[in-house]
Amino acid sequence: MPRVSEAHLAARRQQILEAAWRCFSRQGFHATSMQDVFAESGLSAGAVYRYFPSKADLVRTTAEGIAGIAEDAFQELMSEDPVPRPAEALRRTLVQITRHIASGEVDRTKIALHVWSEAVRDEEIRGIVTVVADRIISRWAELAERWSDAGYLAADADPRKVAHTMYGVMIGFVAQRHLLDLETDDYLDGFGAISR
Amino acid sequence: MPRVSEAHLAARRQQILEAAWRCFSRQGFHATSMQDVFAESGLSAGAVYRYFPSKADLVRTTAEGIAGIAEDAFQELMSEDPVPRPAEALRRTLVQITRHIASGEVDRTKIALHVWSEAVRDEEIRGIVTVVADRIISRWAELAERWSDAGYLAADADPRKVAHTMYGVMIGFVAQRHLLDLETDDYLDGFGAISR
Repeated sequence: MPRVSEAHLAARRQQILEAAWRCFSRQGFHATSMQDVFAESGLSAGAVYRYFPSKADLVRTTAEGIAGIAEDAFQELMSEDPVPRPAEALRRTLVQITRHIASGEVDRTKIALHVWSEAVRDEEIRGIVTVVADRIISRWAELAERWSDAGYLAADADPRKVAHTMYGVMIGFVAQRHLLDLETDDYLDGFGAISR
Repeated sequence: MPRVSEAHLAARRQQILEAAWRCFSRQGFHATSMQDVFAESGLSAGAVYRYFPSKADLVRTTAEGIAGIAEDAFQELMSEDPVPRPAEALRRTLVQITRHIASGEVDRTKIALHVWSEAVRDEEIRGIVTVVADRIISRWAELAERWSDAGYLAADADPRKVAHTMYGVMIGFVAQRHLLDLETDDYLDGFGAISR
């Protein structure tokens, strides 16, 4: 029964991931050990290591999952003509994030804050964060190119630099959401008032 | 000799702070203990506790110092007529930050990343971060009110919401500076191309 077995593997994998998210969310990334993940998941070391040989692997899978969810919003935005303006594009991506990443038992955007902190002092984690950030920034750059063509940006706009601003605005949203309980709509209104 | 004594106290205080910054920068906030600060400063527990009874006190002083440095840029911006536009205001604050906070032996903006991570799971640290964030956001709100009067923002702009966007843009700069080695000028160009 290979199909059942595959579903079982996927479920087990998800069970471990969710246990890790609970640990990271509660204790932060650095203070969480693989032993904590074994205990939280109710699985043996061997069972967990089979899927995730290290904490870095848990972070990689989590970060790629988040990028994949953001990707859905970008795909939709890129498929539209005319391309949605910056404020509308930000609205769609943040709504997608709060709906699919921040919802559920564990808010994964909170884990992002812990992982960014770890990334500035751990090269392996930094590498993972860099790859995923670059994926998201490249998507913003593609959108920025279309904004430029549509005349939405200053004439001398560099899409890659605009992309870093948009990624920065996303990071600033995630941080303030957790530090200051900022509402998504308030942030979007603020960006809408200041952007072209 | 009360004046000498005062200078001595200030120097000792600064010596402890800088030792703490080196620890936080190297190990992160959570993994740094007061024992690490004693060792790094070369002072006794009693000597350190006299100035900073806890890690939270070290964070409070550090955060207030950062806010004070940003405050200098805001004071200058508020004193000008006409008020500098959003992109120019961001330029001045980020230049002030990179010049006075990120420079020197320890880049304190890196510590900010560690403190934000700790703040989402420690109420005392969160309280400190919230107070300092609110101080900076209130300054952006004052500027946003003047931008609104000058016609730089959308007609229905809410200064407080715009302020959260500007604070978010600052956070996004600090994170990308450390995660992606983003250059200040590139980020400012990006913001300039997308802002009104």
